[in-house]
Amino acid sequence: MSSVFGKNIICSIFGQSHSAGIGVVVDGLPAGEAIDLERVAAFMDRRRPGRNPGDTPRRESDAARVLSGLAEGKTCGAPLCAVIENSDTRSGDYEKLRDIPRPGHADYPLRVKHGGHNDIRGGGHASGRLTAPLCFAGAVCLQLLERRGVSIKAEIQQIGGVFDSEAFDAVILEARERGDSVGGVIACRAEGLPAGLGAPMFDGVENRLAAALFGIPAVRGVEFGAGFAAAGMRGSGHNDAYRLEGGTIYTGTNHHGGVLGGVTTGMPLVFRVAIKPTPSIARQQQSVDLKRMEPAALSIGGRHDACIVPRAIPVTEAVAAIVLLDFMQEKPYGF
Amino acid sequence: MSSVFGKNIICSIFGQSHSAGIGVVVDGLPAGEAIDLERVAAFMDRRRPGRNPGDTPRRESDAARVLSGLAEGKTCGAPLCAVIENSDTRSGDYEKLRDIPRPGHADYPLRVKHGGHNDIRGGGHASGRLTAPLCFAGAVCLQLLERRGVSIKAEIQQIGGVFDSEAFDAVILEARERGDSVGGVIACRAEGLPAGLGAPMFDGVENRLAAALFGIPAVRGVEFGAGFAAAGMRGSGHNDAYRLEGGTIYTGTNHHGGVLGGVTTGMPLVFRVAIKPTPSIARQQQSVDLKRMEPAALSIGGRHDACIVPRAIPVTEAVAAIVLLDFMQEKPYGF
Amino acid sequence: MSSVFGKNIICSIFGQSHSAGIGVVVDGLPAGEAIDLERVAAFMDRRRPGRNPGDTPRRESDAARVLSGLAEGKTCGAPLCAVIENSDTRSGDYEKLRDIPRPGHADYPLRVKHGGHNDIRGGGHASGRLTAPLCFAGAVCLQLLERRGVSIKAEIQQIGGVFDSEAFDAVILEARERGDSVGGVIACRAEGLPAGLGAPMFDGVENRLAAALFGIPAVRGVEFGAGFAAAGMRGSGHNDAYRLEGGTIYTGTNHHGGVLGGVTTGMPLVFRVAIKPTPSIARQQQSVDLKRMEPAALSIGGRHDACIVPRAIPVTEAVAAIVLLDFMQEKPYGF
Amino acid sequence: MSSVFGKNIICSIFGQSHSAGIGVVVDGLPAGEAIDLERVAAFMDRRRPGRNPGDTPRRESDAARVLSGLAEGKTCGAPLCAVIENSDTRSGDYEKLRDIPRPGHADYPLRVKHGGHNDIRGGGHASGRLTAPLCFAGAVCLQLLERRGVSIKAEIQQIGGVFDSEAFDAVILEARERGDSVGGVIACRAEGLPAGLGAPMFDGVENRLAAALFGIPAVRGVEFGAGFAAAGMRGSGHNDAYRLEGGTIYTGTNHHGGVLGGVTTGMPLVFRVAIKPTPSIARQQQSVDLKRMEPAALSIGGRHDACIVPRAIPVTEAVAAIVLLDFMQEKPYGF
Repeated sequence: MSSVFGKNIICSIFGQSHSAGIGVVVDGLPAGEAIDLERVAAFMDRRRPGRNPGDTPRRESDAARVLSGLAEGKTCGAPLCAVIENSDTRSGDYEKLRDIPRPGHADYPLRVKHGGHNDIRGGGHASGRLTAPLCFAGAVCLQLLERRGVSIKAEIQQIGGVFDSEAFDAVILEARERGDSVGGVIACRAEGLPAGLGAPMFDGVENRLAAALFGIPAVRGVEFGAGFAAAGMRGSGHNDAYRLEGGTIYTGTNHHGGVLGGVTTGMPLVFRVAIKPTPSIARQQQSVDLKRMEPAALSIGGRHDACIVPRAIPVTEAVAAIVLLDFMQEKPYGF
Repeated sequence: MSSVFGKNIICSIFGQSHSAGIGVVVDGLPAGEAIDLERVAAFMDRRRPGRNPGDTPRRESDAARVLSGLAEGKTCGAPLCAVIENSDTRSGDYEKLRDIPRPGHADYPLRVKHGGHNDIRGGGHASGRLTAPLCFAGAVCLQLLERRGVSIKAEIQQIGGVFDSEAFDAVILEARERGDSVGGVIACRAEGLPAGLGAPMFDGVENRLAAALFGIPAVRGVEFGAGFAAAGMRGSGHNDAYRLEGGTIYTGTNHHGGVLGGVTTGMPLVFRVAIKPTPSIARQQQSVDLKRMEPAALSIGGRHDACIVPRAIPVTEAVAAIVLLDFMQEKPYGF
Repeated sequence: MSSVFGKNIICSIFGQSHSAGIGVVVDGLPAGEAIDLERVAAFMDRRRPGRNPGDTPRRESDAARVLSGLAEGKTCGAPLCAVIENSDTRSGDYEKLRDIPRPGHADYPLRVKHGGHNDIRGGGHASGRLTAPLCFAGAVCLQLLERRGVSIKAEIQQIGGVFDSEAFDAVILEARERGDSVGGVIACRAEGLPAGLGAPMFDGVENRLAAALFGIPAVRGVEFGAGFAAAGMRGSGHNDAYRLEGGTIYTGTNHHGGVLGGVTTGMPLVFRVAIKPTPSIARQQQSVDLKRMEPAALSIGGRHDACIVPRAIPVTEAVAAIVLLDFMQEKPYGF
Repeated sequence: MSSVFGKNIICSIFGQSHSAGIGVVVDGLPAGEAIDLERVAAFMDRRRPGRNPGDTPRRESDAARVLSGLAEGKTCGAPLCAVIENSDTRSGDYEKLRDIPRPGHADYPLRVKHGGHNDIRGGGHASGRLTAPLCFAGAVCLQLLERRGVSIKAEIQQIGGVFDSEAFDAVILEARERGDSVGGVIACRAEGLPAGLGAPMFDGVENRLAAALFGIPAVRGVEFGAGFAAAGMRGSGHNDAYRLEGGTIYTGTNHHGGVLGGVTTGMPLVFRVAIKPTPSIARQQQSVDLKRMEPAALSIGGRHDACIVPRAIPVTEAVAAIVLLDFMQEKPYGF
């Protein structure tokens, strides 16, 4: 099920970087929900290249066309399908890479997996381009969540080891000038979730969110609440004491990040994802010619991002929205 | 599907900390595999309390009885079920906690989720006790992996912020003396995996491993390869150049941790999990009496671990074994 | 996922006919539901051999021991596991059958599937014995359904081509006397289901019920409403006209069997299952010795049912109960 | 997961009868398989209306456009997506039906399920139109099966109770003239399957095939081998004796229909589906106006099939192909 995920809300992503089209089918959305497609397009715009320094100069038209799932502007219970046509693709750029796998990309393992038949143009199905339909699906889910009092907001915590947000552009541009790239960390926060969503062990909020977040290309780590920093804390400092205010239970601190044992506590859900530096860099790299079985130097042309972290912000929100709406479709206790 | 996971190898975990028994059903194991139950028991012993300083003084008999799935000592294609009887349980210790949720535990969110009907004794189904059957399943899978040339080895990277392995015991004992607890980080490495396992996007090695690893109570973060540190690196430093030796492709460095785009590269699979400090501490904590709806101080008696990191080592290996064997049951290209 | 099924209510069945024990794990039951274990035992008794003419003389103690999932007699949100110990097993009866597959049984295809490592004793995991834990799970689900106003009742429609219920015993006994066996058809009816359960296409009531019902050994056909007879009807006669009475929509006839396009209409759900004659018969049969690769005559000793239809009645109800409760756990429109 | 099915080969169907487009995403196809799109189109043509007497006069252009999943004419490991644009839709025909559910259609239960927000035009997502993308997916799978030595062939067994194939057209035309419709039975046979595919209990060939076949609108029954007729047979007559010829095991008769206990035997897989008479008929019918809550007479205009059985033949083959290829993607014993 490489590109299908979800339980109540099931997303099926399709497309390759350079195929005729890419898109998503979202099955299981509750019916009767008005979808503002202009807001969806505005959300998707946040992912489009060309808005941040260091973005790829490739111009994507991310205009998503809805093929099904709506009737009179509202969800109708049928699967929602949206398609984005691919246009500005320069497949010629990639032909020479057929036998020389790019370091840091999935070229080599996919070649083994698919016996050399994988679509290498632009990264094929493993391309970051596939996060566009993911953003479509997430933008739709965000509207439903908003109607249920849930908001999701991601932001950059650091770029290339620098935590000062005013320096982010400079860090990215410096990397670009050197023919290099940088990664970063995105922090995401969901507010308004009810307590009691999820389950212990293998089907809880952390399990399903992590599984989906690792579906974003370049994500190398996922942590909740204090995350890896919790490893250095004492229990007395890490435990969040319960408090009471106006009949509401809450915790003053939020080291648990809104989820304990897989189940939401009603406090803000907080998680972070680590994003590696873009593997496509202008600098020459060392690889192997798999046909001739000999070392080969590789210079990646094409048009690439020096840092995908800014564009990964809406993608992170989108994935969180899809997973959290899925949990909210579970029947709660007592109904 | 709170306690069921897997695609080809499906584990279903059952039991509560203080129920009559706990156990696991493993469906989908290939037939004809001899299982050395003594080695399984030895593996489970590594998880048993009482072996490390700071372990709970609670004595568990983790003797697992196989109810089904074997015929003449070999897997027979039927689901493998093993049961561990619970004996040394002191349920009385927990009764007073019914209405006062313990900070850092799932008591409160589970109370909301289950309308107060969850089994609070010993943490119920959310207890670390449930990792015993997980170890059983993992120990079985490890024997099959070993036969296929795959080994898995986890070790402690840090305890409570200290990276010097000789100081681990002291850190734990100091926390215990202060009525406190510590967490840590476990690093795990799987060698011998073929290239080409997994898939891009949502059903790859990172997705499924992360989802399963977050099923281990107290895990708060999962990272692959360089993980969060990748965020601070440049692409030129993070990319692992391909090399050739004796007809074999490999990478000299392994920042990618053996998996690119969800698919294994044939290099050692490397991941780390962050484990929070045990939430059960002797020190008095602040909570709320949910019945009287008033603040309540809480002192947790019972018998608890000051640090579960040493006991989580085999659990991490077990989870990795189950997930990786599952991937190895996929039909590879060309068959 | 050979022995796991369900979406919100997930059953995992384990055991072989002659393994130490058999049982079931039921994950996803709503919490706070009192389970009357005596009624569960009484339900399971209906499946036990020895109650009907033609039953196997084998005596099964189907006493199911609950290992987990209950707290103070109520479901607690943790997986419910019940185990039945196997005792009266005569494995010696089967040894000679190792290389000579019994016609009508899964011996031969399972031998191929598992490379000869399947447990042949008593049919192993493919044995009708495995319907005992299924009945446990179903009996539990029936109590929850009853509390929600849903009742399920199955009955024999025909035995061996005879539709007169007073002649059933004679038909079975005659077959037994001739060293032969008979099959039959069971009709099942669920009342009280709300309209709107299920979904069109692949995840509706017919899809999931049929998939589960074919899990009952010996079931060879499943039909809903008029079923195969619908093929001989005209649309004008088959369509059920809607009527109105006291503000309630209903249909005067029920050829649709309570489900249209995968979704319940609120009318009684009606389906039938065809059960083949028990393949184990006393008469000599023709088979092949797979070791010597030569023809071999086969006389099946052991203790067998001349007709399993009567014992399959509670099994049919049980399967229906599990699947229907699963559907009732879906969040309905508007919540 | 209303419109998603499969384990290794996952199909996600989308679209409504009158939405902008309909289509399918097929995830999990092995890579490197050449797909002859002309043969796919020819297969889909068999489902198109207008080829049989009694077909709807509606003209569908079923031209499927492949958006992704192929590279240089071969599968590339990425999900295969095909879209069919909807054009000849007359939505006006349906507006008056909004509040008056058509007997025999899913209008009423879907109205309840979706709170009245389902797309009623042309049956929406529950329309037989959705079998067009299913045929696309099946036609692709058939090419892969053919390459693996497996063929699938369905044919009409009876129409409206008449088993003489030469009379089928007359039966259908007579029904049409009377403003009525007829159903029928389709028999399907798959040859060349290896023994050992599937599994006992809940994930075998019957389970998954039946679940998928009930996804074809109007299917009311599914049976394997002798099916419901087995209920009237004796074990001695129903059991298929094993024979040996040239080192090959086979059965002279095939009452078991190629599958025992969920697992293929290597004999031809034989099943039948019962198809109800088309619910859309010209004759006036009785229904209820759900807005005014009063009885209402209903005459269905629009363009409809007097019998969909002929068009359901390729659909049956398509569904069988998808499910059987899925099973063939399981890793067999010993690999």
